[in-house]
Amino acid sequence: MSLLVVGSVAFDNVRTPHGEAAEILGGAATYFSVAASWFTPVRVVAVVGEDFAETHLQVFRDRGIDTTGLERAAGRTFRWRGEYTGDMNEARTIETQLNVFEAFAPRIPAAYLESEYVFLGNIDPVLQFHVRQQLPRARLVALDSMNYWITGKLDDLKRTLAAVDVLVINEGEAKMLSGHSNLKRAATTIRELGPQTLVFKRGEYGATLFTQDSVFSAPAFPLDMVKDPTGAGDTFAGGFMGQLAKTGDLSEANLRRALDRMRPVLARLAGA
Amino acid sequence: MSLLVVGSVAFDNVRTPHGEAAEILGGAATYFSVAASWFTPVRVVAVVGEDFAETHLQVFRDRGIDTTGLERAAGRTFRWRGEYTGDMNEARTIETQLNVFEAFAPRIPAAYLESEYVFLGNIDPVLQFHVRQQLPRARLVALDSMNYWITGKLDDLKRTLAAVDVLVINEGEAKMLSGHSNLKRAATTIRELGPQTLVFKRGEYGATLFTQDSVFSAPAFPLDMVKDPTGAGDTFAGGFMGQLAKTGDLSEANLRRALDRMRPVLARLAGA
Repeated sequence: MSLLVVGSVAFDNVRTPHGEAAEILGGAATYFSVAASWFTPVRVVAVVGEDFAETHLQVFRDRGIDTTGLERAAGRTFRWRGEYTGDMNEARTIETQLNVFEAFAPRIPAAYLESEYVFLGNIDPVLQFHVRQQLPRARLVALDSMNYWITGKLDDLKRTLAAVDVLVINEGEAKMLSGHSNLKRAATTIRELGPQTLVFKRGEYGATLFTQDSVFSAPAFPLDMVKDPTGAGDTFAGGFMGQLAKTGDLSEANLRRALDRMRPVLARLAGA
Repeated sequence: MSLLVVGSVAFDNVRTPHGEAAEILGGAATYFSVAASWFTPVRVVAVVGEDFAETHLQVFRDRGIDTTGLERAAGRTFRWRGEYTGDMNEARTIETQLNVFEAFAPRIPAAYLESEYVFLGNIDPVLQFHVRQQLPRARLVALDSMNYWITGKLDDLKRTLAAVDVLVINEGEAKMLSGHSNLKRAATTIRELGPQTLVFKRGEYGATLFTQDSVFSAPAFPLDMVKDPTGAGDTFAGGFMGQLAKTGDLSEANLRRALDRMRPVLARLAGA
């Protein structure tokens, strides 16, 4: 079944201890949709600028991703410049240029409206809520968010959380959102806000799934070297949601399977 | 088969966000031997002072632990005073009184000399090496150590490492010992120093086993509350070694089983 993703498409400038890369195609929606496309047909809603070339579009087309919802606006594509140092567990943002993203108001193409599986990438919770409202037939809606929105737009985020089924979020942000440093208590508190299924991304340690009745952890494979962890969390979410959309099976067993088969990707998450 | 442990027996004074406990029986050898005693007969080599009462000895006897090697010396028992704050991932040592431990020279009783399974608890690597030399018939010798010895007695620690089969150590200390922040590289480097089987304790995330050919991770069960993580690492090691000594099976599959069945204990390790 089709999987719809709303999020950022960006050009990244990344420096790591292993080197530098300039103006490379990135953004949550890009990483998510490419990963998910190995499992199921994917539809993307995002905005790009006039500098978004045919070669960039081809990355999506090569994976059979439906780009009807990829809006082209006047101006430059969203840009992120970041750096990883030391154990590469966290990126330091050097510069963010919102560009066309500043006025982004996601429009869902008519052909997308019956989408049953939806991933609301990490964007303004007001926009996430707006998208959620346009997709009343969705069977499973998952959400990502981050410290920036938890601190700056908590009420909007809570309204959005109340309207989704799954939260896929970094462990540290789950603790921040819930106010609990204990992960199990954090899960209980967040589940009271709405989403009944939680996936906490724990960097090089893997991911942990909390549902009504159980807890399931998938450790990550340790890797010899991590060159660049950018997009690892979205890549993971793409595989997880891709497996669910492909099978249409929302059983506990399949949720675990979706988490477990993404282990190699999880290993990229933290960069240790 | 019998399992021999050499290490500290102590009285602990512990403060956590949940309360305080004064003069409670602790020490690596205590936690290890009590945990291991659920799997296999255990023999303990340690030193206690004149303040070590019959009730304390009874803790070992109640678990059928052989205390022939529990030496009683003139003076007071080793004391540790520590505190856990915040996420309780690490203890802050407030005070250490070595007392009888200062002059501890482990003597292996004649009846222990044929021990095949040995755990060298976290004490001076010079003493660990001395014990190792007295047990030529050991089939499997495991070692714990810590930052204090890595920084202060690295050459002695390396000599001891060259003479053991298994290293059970905290992840952070493995990175310190190897000089690598990447866990897989840390494992490769440490295995070159001697022990071919490595168990890295990763706090609330669980533990990861590195052998010649493979990597195996056992995530920890998240707990609602952790009152006091003191001794969790030694308790874990006791269960791990207990399973190996009980079965006499050093296959990869049984190493994994030994790690995996200790998951509930692992959850105590970090206190999150």
